[in-house]
Amino acid sequence: MPRAYDRAITIFSPEGRLYQVEYALELVKRGAPIAGVSSPEGVVLAANEAPESRLEDPDYYRKLFQLDDHVGAAIAGLSSDARVLINYARVYCQSNKLLYDEPVDIEALTRRIGDLAQVYTQHAGVRPFGVSMIVGGVDRVGCRIFSTDPSGSYRGYRATAVGRRSEEANRVLEEGYRLDISLEEAIALALRAVRTASEGSPTARELRVAVIPADTRTFRRLSVEEVEKYLR
Amino acid sequence: MPRAYDRAITIFSPEGRLYQVEYALELVKRGAPIAGVSSPEGVVLAANEAPESRLEDPDYYRKLFQLDDHVGAAIAGLSSDARVLINYARVYCQSNKLLYDEPVDIEALTRRIGDLAQVYTQHAGVRPFGVSMIVGGVDRVGCRIFSTDPSGSYRGYRATAVGRRSEEANRVLEEGYRLDISLEEAIALALRAVRTASEGSPTARELRVAVIPADTRTFRRLSVEEVEKYLR
Amino acid sequence: MPRAYDRAITIFSPEGRLYQVEYALELVKRGAPIAGVSSPEGVVLAANEAPESRLEDPDYYRKLFQLDDHVGAAIAGLSSDARVLINYARVYCQSNKLLYDEPVDIEALTRRIGDLAQVYTQHAGVRPFGVSMIVGGVDRVGCRIFSTDPSGSYRGYRATAVGRRSEEANRVLEEGYRLDISLEEAIALALRAVRTASEGSPTARELRVAVIPADTRTFRRLSVEEVEKYLR
Amino acid sequence: MPRAYDRAITIFSPEGRLYQVEYALELVKRGAPIAGVSSPEGVVLAANEAPESRLEDPDYYRKLFQLDDHVGAAIAGLSSDARVLINYARVYCQSNKLLYDEPVDIEALTRRIGDLAQVYTQHAGVRPFGVSMIVGGVDRVGCRIFSTDPSGSYRGYRATAVGRRSEEANRVLEEGYRLDISLEEAIALALRAVRTASEGSPTARELRVAVIPADTRTFRRLSVEEVEKYLR
Amino acid sequence: MPRAYDRAITIFSPEGRLYQVEYALELVKRGAPIAGVSSPEGVVLAANEAPESRLEDPDYYRKLFQLDDHVGAAIAGLSSDARVLINYARVYCQSNKLLYDEPVDIEALTRRIGDLAQVYTQHAGVRPFGVSMIVGGVDRVGCRIFSTDPSGSYRGYRATAVGRRSEEANRVLEEGYRLDISLEEAIALALRAVRTASEGSPTARELRVAVIPADTRTFRRLSVEEVEKYLR
Amino acid sequence: MPRAYDRAITIFSPEGRLYQVEYALELVKRGAPIAGVSSPEGVVLAANEAPESRLEDPDYYRKLFQLDDHVGAAIAGLSSDARVLINYARVYCQSNKLLYDEPVDIEALTRRIGDLAQVYTQHAGVRPFGVSMIVGGVDRVGCRIFSTDPSGSYRGYRATAVGRRSEEANRVLEEGYRLDISLEEAIALALRAVRTASEGSPTARELRVAVIPADTRTFRRLSVEEVEKYLR
Amino acid sequence: MPRAYDRAITIFSPEGRLYQVEYALELVKRGAPIAGVSSPEGVVLAANEAPESRLEDPDYYRKLFQLDDHVGAAIAGLSSDARVLINYARVYCQSNKLLYDEPVDIEALTRRIGDLAQVYTQHAGVRPFGVSMIVGGVDRVGCRIFSTDPSGSYRGYRATAVGRRSEEANRVLEEGYRLDISLEEAIALALRAVRTASEGSPTARELRVAVIPADTRTFRRLSVEEVEKYLR
Repeated sequence: MPRAYDRAITIFSPEGRLYQVEYALELVKRGAPIAGVSSPEGVVLAANEAPESRLEDPDYYRKLFQLDDHVGAAIAGLSSDARVLINYARVYCQSNKLLYDEPVDIEALTRRIGDLAQVYTQHAGVRPFGVSMIVGGVDRVGCRIFSTDPSGSYRGYRATAVGRRSEEANRVLEEGYRLDISLEEAIALALRAVRTASEGSPTARELRVAVIPADTRTFRRLSVEEVEKYLR
Repeated sequence: MPRAYDRAITIFSPEGRLYQVEYALELVKRGAPIAGVSSPEGVVLAANEAPESRLEDPDYYRKLFQLDDHVGAAIAGLSSDARVLINYARVYCQSNKLLYDEPVDIEALTRRIGDLAQVYTQHAGVRPFGVSMIVGGVDRVGCRIFSTDPSGSYRGYRATAVGRRSEEANRVLEEGYRLDISLEEAIALALRAVRTASEGSPTARELRVAVIPADTRTFRRLSVEEVEKYLR
Repeated sequence: MPRAYDRAITIFSPEGRLYQVEYALELVKRGAPIAGVSSPEGVVLAANEAPESRLEDPDYYRKLFQLDDHVGAAIAGLSSDARVLINYARVYCQSNKLLYDEPVDIEALTRRIGDLAQVYTQHAGVRPFGVSMIVGGVDRVGCRIFSTDPSGSYRGYRATAVGRRSEEANRVLEEGYRLDISLEEAIALALRAVRTASEGSPTARELRVAVIPADTRTFRRLSVEEVEKYLR
Repeated sequence: MPRAYDRAITIFSPEGRLYQVEYALELVKRGAPIAGVSSPEGVVLAANEAPESRLEDPDYYRKLFQLDDHVGAAIAGLSSDARVLINYARVYCQSNKLLYDEPVDIEALTRRIGDLAQVYTQHAGVRPFGVSMIVGGVDRVGCRIFSTDPSGSYRGYRATAVGRRSEEANRVLEEGYRLDISLEEAIALALRAVRTASEGSPTARELRVAVIPADTRTFRRLSVEEVEKYLR
Repeated sequence: MPRAYDRAITIFSPEGRLYQVEYALELVKRGAPIAGVSSPEGVVLAANEAPESRLEDPDYYRKLFQLDDHVGAAIAGLSSDARVLINYARVYCQSNKLLYDEPVDIEALTRRIGDLAQVYTQHAGVRPFGVSMIVGGVDRVGCRIFSTDPSGSYRGYRATAVGRRSEEANRVLEEGYRLDISLEEAIALALRAVRTASEGSPTARELRVAVIPADTRTFRRLSVEEVEKYLR
Repeated sequence: MPRAYDRAITIFSPEGRLYQVEYALELVKRGAPIAGVSSPEGVVLAANEAPESRLEDPDYYRKLFQLDDHVGAAIAGLSSDARVLINYARVYCQSNKLLYDEPVDIEALTRRIGDLAQVYTQHAGVRPFGVSMIVGGVDRVGCRIFSTDPSGSYRGYRATAVGRRSEEANRVLEEGYRLDISLEEAIALALRAVRTASEGSPTARELRVAVIPADTRTFRRLSVEEVEKYLR
Repeated sequence: MPRAYDRAITIFSPEGRLYQVEYALELVKRGAPIAGVSSPEGVVLAANEAPESRLEDPDYYRKLFQLDDHVGAAIAGLSSDARVLINYARVYCQSNKLLYDEPVDIEALTRRIGDLAQVYTQHAGVRPFGVSMIVGGVDRVGCRIFSTDPSGSYRGYRATAVGRRSEEANRVLEEGYRLDISLEEAIALALRAVRTASEGSPTARELRVAVIPADTRTFRRLSVEEVEKYLR
């Protein structure tokens, strides 16, 4: 039963664990499921955005965010914490564009988000961010997917899922993924992973999808009708 | 029985919860009921402002605030905390007008309020704000309602209620809401939601209503006589 | 039996209460009684300033303060804490006069005092102010009375009492108040409220009264002889 | 048995008390007795400055300090803490003289000392001053005596005593004081109060007296021979 | 059972130990194994970078980093912490080149990394870095290997291994090392040390190798095919 | 058994005591004995500087310090803490000479040292100085001796002893002191006080003496041979 | 069993001890043995630098450091902490040379190191340095040896040993030291002291010696062969 480690801000336990970071991960693991899948034809981000009430306005987005023309992010965890990272990432994209006159590298962007998150795990007076993100986009290297967590660590993936029941969602991804997967198949696979991890079986209204095709390199949200097509 | 988490300022519990934020929500849940309803013809904010004493001056407002010409807010929780957010929102509206020469976007305004509230949940040396808000107004997108809470999260709604017995008030809203609801009907519905959540049955003197009609886009408080009309 | 909440500076208890603020209110509730009454003819502030010793100098004031020509305040609680707010209010009155060339609005002044008090309830490294105030004066709106408390909240009143046994004093005010009360009657009512809440029955030497008449809009302290007149 | 309140710096106990301030007062109550008496002919400050050892040098002062030509102070409590306030008061007297070209008002000076002391009771990272002071002098209002305590509160007196067994010393003052007391009588009375509160019966060598006559308005220390005269 | 020392940030225990530093070392000891071997012909860094999932992208590096043309580093522990040190080291290399127009000395670089780590063990408000590093490269002195740990200490080695089961890996190194070892042999030896410390027997896809040959003095990563060759 | 007061930095205990200051005094009371004696012919400072080891270098001083031409100090307690005060005092002497072109007043110098020490007893984040000092010298007032302690308080003396068994040393001083004591006699008396308080009976090699004669007003250390003379 | 004192940063225990400083000394007492010996012909510093592993690089130094041409230091304790002091000392030597155009005085240098160490024992937010040093060199005064400890205190010696089993090493020094010891003899004596305090009997490869001869006043490390010579 851990006790003392809860009190101080993000220090090591005798086993060398950072409890505050692990507790933040517990919050992430209870978050609504998200997934990202890369294909040679583009990158897909998907999320369960089921509203809490029938009167919730469907016209604003809570889980999928555009960071720049060619890159977006899906979040799992505390949305107010996520906004801090999203704002930070957007500023980084813009200043990168101004400085170097070219779209930001997806890994460099993810590393930067992770670097900010790391600071909140090593200094007193703050708590870690209670959010994990899947960052996906198309840059000079190709179609790429990364995920970050509250420790500030990140990893590159071809496809990955985060949030509630992510083990099951990742099993769906591992079974369905091929290196030559088409963008259409990637959308269907991402949606399947998110639905597998969701409670009940969410409808097209409750699922959100964004794609960054390799040719246009432009973030685009799918309409409810388009999502519907992939659920059949 | 939570213990250690109470002592340190807003850190994660082992289950990944932020107790200070949840305790602040307890304060909000004991606050006098407020409601917001959007209609194609405008937005309605309503609140129970029953005075604590017969000698209280009825000519000042405690729950409904104008933020800019086209946007207002209702608050539930600690009014002194709310004023900090209200002041911040008003400054943001004004500087937005100066910078871009156009009325602020309602979602952008709400997000900004939430961003400030989030800071108070992640840094030591402060406590979260003990207040939730319904922000409503008419902007280029249309008639819109958002609500924020002490975590800094926000959501968009067509109609929503916050504060004491908000589940019952929200049930009233869900039953009575239609997408084509008229402004008159929206006022009546908002008042019904607030009265349902109130103790006793408050009179027109104790209920406050503000509307932002879609045509004028101008915040206006209803007189006691006008409110009376909707209670019949 | 609250425990942990006492240690940290003004954080929420599980029930969403701010214990430090409530403890400060305990101090206020033990303070000598004060009252404020507004009449169409002016505003009255009254206080029990019974000295602690026979050798105390009667020629200085401890409970009633002039803030500007047209506005004053009565305090209940820790007088050294009150002075911080009094000094702050006086500076605000002066700078308001310099900036806008008109007397400060009474509600705006009270809100400002409350805003300062609120800061001391949300940030670590300080404790709340152990004082409540009745602010009264005459401005463009009319004759007005407000009260603030250690949370930084404020409310408008026609008449109100704060401090020791304030329930009884407020009952006296509710019974005796009329909307068309004369200034003379208002003085007598305020004194009756203060005496009711006092231990023993204080004499004219121990009671202090200040008035801001609607015509002169000028703060004036009553002499012992004048007070005497109202006690008969 | 108070416990938690001791740990944090000057926060409220559930009864609304500031323990650190009360503990500082305990220190004051153990301090050597001091007294101040005002007469129409001038102000008297007296103190028991009995040395701790026979080898102590009688030619420096520990309890009575001149603050300006027309004003002095007696201290009870921690002399090193007192020096901070004395230094602060002297600077205030000088800058007041420079700014307004007139001697400082005694109440304004005392309030200023109290304002500094108050800051040390409301902010973390410091402890209250462990000292009470009697400030006395002659200004445009007349011959005046004030006392401050560790909370930063102050009160005006005609005569008062602070420190060890101050109740008995104050009883002596109440019995012996008259409004038309002469300066000679005031000196004798102040000495009687200090001696009453002292252990044993201190001699002229152990008692210190300073006077500010109403005509000269100039602080003057009495010699051992002069003090001797009043003890007969 | 250590207790109090966990709470405060990096203070001494009665035995003169810094628990937070030791706990950070526990994290390092659970990290994937890394090794460094110097030969007269160049320096070798090797790491087990086995992915956590089949869908992880093999084209980004997590354990081996280039710091400058002639120097690289392998890390064991928390990768987000390591990035802070890596970024710091890279900036130091660049500014050294700008200031002195020559490649940085490997020991000076390692000492600098250790100096930063040391700061995090002596000051409150931060925790130590949860990472150890092997820094290797070729400078004017020759082919050199150093390792740093969370205390900020560093040591020079001819060959060393850090991370999980490092005792066994170091035994392999001690047995296989000769002063005149060739670069080819050094690569094979480093891989043997890493494989010995790994769970299961990692394939070429899971092992990463970087070399800095003495002639080119240029950091180069080996391809999967090259690594394969050394595993036969 | 005091407990809570040990944890927080220098706050008041319920009896109005500052434990950290009292604990620092415990350290002083275990320090090697020092003494100061003033005579009309000059001032004497003496200390037991018995080395801890036979190999200690006798040619540096640990207990007696020159502060300016005409003033010196002896210390009891933590020598590293004392150096901070010594450095501070020397700078004050120099800047006083520059500003006023005359040697510093001994009491003003001692008060300044005490003022610095006081700061360390009232603010968090520091601990009090673990040292008491005897400051002695010859200024316009005459030959003077003062002592300061960890609280920042100071007192004037004709002769005083501090450190281990200071009660006994002070008894020796009280018995042997006369107002017309010669400098020679003062040296012998100071040495007798220090030896009385010392363990064993220290030789001339272990005792240090410095004098500031009234005529030269110049600090001078006595040689071992001179000290020897006074021990016979 | 000390408890509370461990938690707060370097405060006094009831007996007037600084536990954090004493705990740091425990670390020093477990450090590898070092010794310093001064002779009329020069100063010797010696240390046991036995490597932890057979693969450790013998060509870097961990215990003996050159601070300036004419002065060096040996360290016992935490090497990463020592580096902070070493860096500080080197900067001080250089700036002293620039300012005064002469080599730094050895005692002034040691005092400066001690002054920095003292700061870390009196202020919160840091812990003391876990290192003791022997500073030795030749300046205008002659051949000199000083040692500092974690409290910031320092003492002058003719010969001294610090670290593991320093009592035994110091006994060796006391027995073997003569005031007219030759440099050759001093080297042999220092090595004997270090070997006595070491576990096993270290060879010339494991022992390090540096000398600063009185004639050259230049720090020089002895080769393994030279050390060998003194071990016969």
